[in-house]
Amino acid sequence: MAASSDSTSPPDWDVIIVGAGIAGLTAAYRLQKQKPGIKVLVLEAKDRVGGRTYTTELEGAHGKDIWDLGGQWVGSSQYHIIWLLNELGLEKYPQYTTGKKMMLLGNKGIRTYEASIPSMSYLSLIDLQRFMTATDKTAASLPVHNPMDAPDADILDSMTLETLVRQTTYTLEARDAIDIAINQIFGAQPRMLSALFYYYYVSSARDMRTLNETTDGANQEFRIKGGAQQISTILTDRIGQERVLLDHPVEHIDQRDAHKVTVVTEAGQQFTGRYVIVATPLHCSTNIEYVPTLPLERISLARHSPMAHLFKFIVTYQTAFWREDGFSGEIFSNGVSRPSKASTGPLQLTFDCTTPNGSPALVGFYCNGREWSQIEPAVRQAAILDALAEFFGPKAKEPLDYREKDWALEPYNGGCPVNVMTPGAMTYFHGGLRTPFDRVHWAGTESATHHCGYLSGAVQSGMRAASEVLGRLEPAHIRDEIMTALDGRRDYKDDEEKETWGWALGGLIGVAAVAALVVRKLWYY
Amino acid sequence: MAASSDSTSPPDWDVIIVGAGIAGLTAAYRLQKQKPGIKVLVLEAKDRVGGRTYTTELEGAHGKDIWDLGGQWVGSSQYHIIWLLNELGLEKYPQYTTGKKMMLLGNKGIRTYEASIPSMSYLSLIDLQRFMTATDKTAASLPVHNPMDAPDADILDSMTLETLVRQTTYTLEARDAIDIAINQIFGAQPRMLSALFYYYYVSSARDMRTLNETTDGANQEFRIKGGAQQISTILTDRIGQERVLLDHPVEHIDQRDAHKVTVVTEAGQQFTGRYVIVATPLHCSTNIEYVPTLPLERISLARHSPMAHLFKFIVTYQTAFWREDGFSGEIFSNGVSRPSKASTGPLQLTFDCTTPNGSPALVGFYCNGREWSQIEPAVRQAAILDALAEFFGPKAKEPLDYREKDWALEPYNGGCPVNVMTPGAMTYFHGGLRTPFDRVHWAGTESATHHCGYLSGAVQSGMRAASEVLGRLEPAHIRDEIMTALDGRRDYKDDEEKETWGWALGGLIGVAAVAALVVRKLWYY
Repeated sequence: MAASSDSTSPPDWDVIIVGAGIAGLTAAYRLQKQKPGIKVLVLEAKDRVGGRTYTTELEGAHGKDIWDLGGQWVGSSQYHIIWLLNELGLEKYPQYTTGKKMMLLGNKGIRTYEASIPSMSYLSLIDLQRFMTATDKTAASLPVHNPMDAPDADILDSMTLETLVRQTTYTLEARDAIDIAINQIFGAQPRMLSALFYYYYVSSARDMRTLNETTDGANQEFRIKGGAQQISTILTDRIGQERVLLDHPVEHIDQRDAHKVTVVTEAGQQFTGRYVIVATPLHCSTNIEYVPTLPLERISLARHSPMAHLFKFIVTYQTAFWREDGFSGEIFSNGVSRPSKASTGPLQLTFDCTTPNGSPALVGFYCNGREWSQIEPAVRQAAILDALAEFFGPKAKEPLDYREKDWALEPYNGGCPVNVMTPGAMTYFHGGLRTPFDRVHWAGTESATHHCGYLSGAVQSGMRAASEVLGRLEPAHIRDEIMTALDGRRDYKDDEEKETWGWALGGLIGVAAVAALVVRKLWYY
Repeated sequence: MAASSDSTSPPDWDVIIVGAGIAGLTAAYRLQKQKPGIKVLVLEAKDRVGGRTYTTELEGAHGKDIWDLGGQWVGSSQYHIIWLLNELGLEKYPQYTTGKKMMLLGNKGIRTYEASIPSMSYLSLIDLQRFMTATDKTAASLPVHNPMDAPDADILDSMTLETLVRQTTYTLEARDAIDIAINQIFGAQPRMLSALFYYYYVSSARDMRTLNETTDGANQEFRIKGGAQQISTILTDRIGQERVLLDHPVEHIDQRDAHKVTVVTEAGQQFTGRYVIVATPLHCSTNIEYVPTLPLERISLARHSPMAHLFKFIVTYQTAFWREDGFSGEIFSNGVSRPSKASTGPLQLTFDCTTPNGSPALVGFYCNGREWSQIEPAVRQAAILDALAEFFGPKAKEPLDYREKDWALEPYNGGCPVNVMTPGAMTYFHGGLRTPFDRVHWAGTESATHHCGYLSGAVQSGMRAASEVLGRLEPAHIRDEIMTALDGRRDYKDDEEKETWGWALGGLIGVAAVAALVVRKLWYY
């Protein structure tokens, strides 16, 4: 138990922030911007800033170059992160999407397609489209600040997403496609998620297209020149490096003193602040010991929201041979391509990941990463290269460099991209997500209402927490104007942005319906 | 990170056990019995032994007397705990069940009934009976050591128990009854549980009747004279008090040395052992830091298995006035009796809890305990007494003493009775439940295959872990004969024990069917 510091002495800091990821650093940056002279300290458990972003150097075609092994994409509908990139002078560049995409769904073998209409049977396409449209419709009507206010919230949070999928889709291909998308978006299987959480997540990102696609405002639209971890290193420079202490894991937060909070690190160092912002993944925030004890609502929310699992790899090559063969580098696979050591093949999703310097590379995510994570690294890597060769030919087996990151093994993190909510979590504990606990406020992408689970959500949550604390430090404080403007942009651009293949499919369904009527007429006559 | 001790020195202990609950102490006891001279050390985080059992003194009708605020019941089909009680010379006595029971389900007001046939409409009774029969049938066919081998395992673990209930029941009363039963058996809502975990749990206890009832081998059949915590205090005496160190929370377990394990406590004390048995609730076992890191399967299993929540109270009285009025003391309520500060009333289940010395008392469990836990204690207590008075009359408002225990607030425990598995946990991580991690073995009632979640399951898990470790210490070791005999008794006594109201209902359904046919015949003529 932490010894409380002398209760008569004033606190050392105005605000102590736990966690130097994008959320925590954004909070510190906004506090300093809005209240010059404010004393802010950031304590980070790891030996680096950046949280779930991590930029690393690999051998590329033109010597060393850098790639992201953590979060790497942003989209122009992610207003908060776009604002921050501009603020920090960081450039973005479009995800390469030219050429044919490849797909392995059902038992149909590898197929190619262009644009965003997957190469499926018409029946499967209609099935998938119906599911996506229904998702968007429900998501659009969801009150994103309090999803339990939705009319169907109680029933939706009583079931898994898999139950919903089984109840509303009929084809193996559509189910496969949904399965892969969910795995890649959430890092979790459909059976692990509450159906309500699924709608909430889609709602916070706008719609399924935004979550899935690489163009027109979608979340994989742009990459960040120089890597995503720079957001945090530049923020640290702006805040002042002396204000961000690395290797300072927080163990206790003590609020027994009525006027300040005492924060104690694993090494026993004590810091006192008027307010604290905990800006860590949800489950890490409850690994800290609080005195008095955290509200049960917060503890239970974390317990019912396991951290998801993503396992990412990057392969660099001498040439972008897939481009030369007319492929975009995008693979979307159910992993059943070949017998393997695990219960599925290793490959689920890839994209072109060539750098702005022109160093060719592919980035991808393991299928069934939890299982592959327990197989020896050399076997694993060989399996990935074999699988890439199945799609792109033998050149895929001659990489310059290969690097992977199993986020589940990262200390003070334990997974990626986000804590996912299981059925019942929102029904009973949603109040624990953002409600401050006395002088402790909560940030982190899990607590975002706009692009929860993404870099942009981290930015939004940091701005919101900073604003909450400013409001307490200065009762006359007016809500952060920039934040208000960015939050307000959730009323997105409208219909002209709607996907084009929806219309194409609408037409198809129409034709099919007419054909069916004609056939039936003929039958009766 | 723990400093590893000198790798040339022999380990201080043969076996170090983490956790002095029933599982850990049973393991220590069996190890000493089967291999005299073995050096066993038990490290306990709390300042007491007993884990999820806790016996306390209250003011009773004949002065001070003792009651259980944790696990308190055993049944004669719980072979492992019955064996241990005999071994320790502890006596049991039957739960008082004479008289009428009271029930509040649906919107029907308070009703009374006798025996085990609830006072419901025939339709609701048939509905409930169908659900219970179907549960028992599926549970009986489940391979309890590896539930994922069941033919329907994949689909059952993809859905919540609530989905199953909604799909297979039709009446409000039956659903209410199931809801209350699940809440009380698991300390969790039906939507929080995987349907497969539900069947697994029923299977490990035999059937629904065993889980629900108070007679004929069921789990609430007997109480333990002198309280359930005695099991642990007597075991500690037998093991040797100097071998059980209280206030020794374990923080690190280091297996980098090939010949021994180093266990480090929060205070930095180091102990080395040839093997370690971690005998804590599932989620506590993964709060310890392991070097090398725990297998992901174990970590993920814990993350997808939140600790449940039970909130128990005991009220003592001068007289057992409910007995005088012909009531057994049993209330079964959906909590909708009256407007309250929480979203439901406080009372879900009560039983007579008069001591062997004749000190009258009622024991009960909060309905919606998570919510009530956040309301002020005085308001909460008044609400409980008011609710009791609704059922038993104004005398209920004049207690001698009142005590409650919210297990979620207990450090190194965080809930009761058991970690429950959410959908997907068993599909992907069931292997993490009992598979040893190098020299670390797992015990605790969560890992039991017989009466998982009960005192008896704790005993079974401790015996199994002891046996595993003995097998490694002495390759010629033969499986623990007592354990083998007890485990073998899972082939229970058969049909004569089946519930009688099943037959009664069968008759009713028959009569109803004939009547319906007759009516239909008349209709057509």
